[in-house]
Amino acid sequence: MHLNEIDLVGFFAAVLTTIAFIPQLIKTWRSKSAKDVSYIMFALFISGVSLWCVYGWEIHSIPVVIANIITFILASLILILKYIYEKQEV
Amino acid sequence: MHLNEIDLVGFFAAVLTTIAFIPQLIKTWRSKSAKDVSYIMFALFISGVSLWCVYGWEIHSIPVVIANIITFILASLILILKYIYEKQEV
Repeated sequence: MHLNEIDLVGFFAAVLTTIAFIPQLIKTWRSKSAKDVSYIMFALFISGVSLWCVYGWEIHSIPVVIANIITFILASLILILKYIYEKQEV
Repeated sequence: MHLNEIDLVGFFAAVLTTIAFIPQLIKTWRSKSAKDVSYIMFALFISGVSLWCVYGWEIHSIPVVIANIITFILASLILILKYIYEKQEV
């Protein structure tokens, strides 16, 4: 593949793994439940995504930084909703 | 940061976003339920991770390929378990 094609694959990969959290957020919001969603998964994922932001910043890759900031926000919102809904259940 | 430190941040970022799926897999396996987990999230995520593998291969980055193959396997297992458990419920 040429470099531009490779970049395009990387771009679509980033878009897919970023927007993936939108349907989970919508589902959690609608069902008012995230019982089956693992706290540890999202905690680890958010930590990893934070490090990806630092990494992107250090290698001067704006796409890596932006994609991971969006993922950070979406994943954090899911975690916050899970916390709120589980607190309401008690 | 020096290059080695930057690489280390990238390495830990990759480890965290990869192993994040292990607690979700264990939780799903134990509870025999993934009702609140979004099919679309995992479908999009697995598609994105597949593209990351292609991207990693093309830029000759073995860490990117390996991290994404592991994530692909873990996320696929969660999706398969969700499918099996929901089929059993019907």
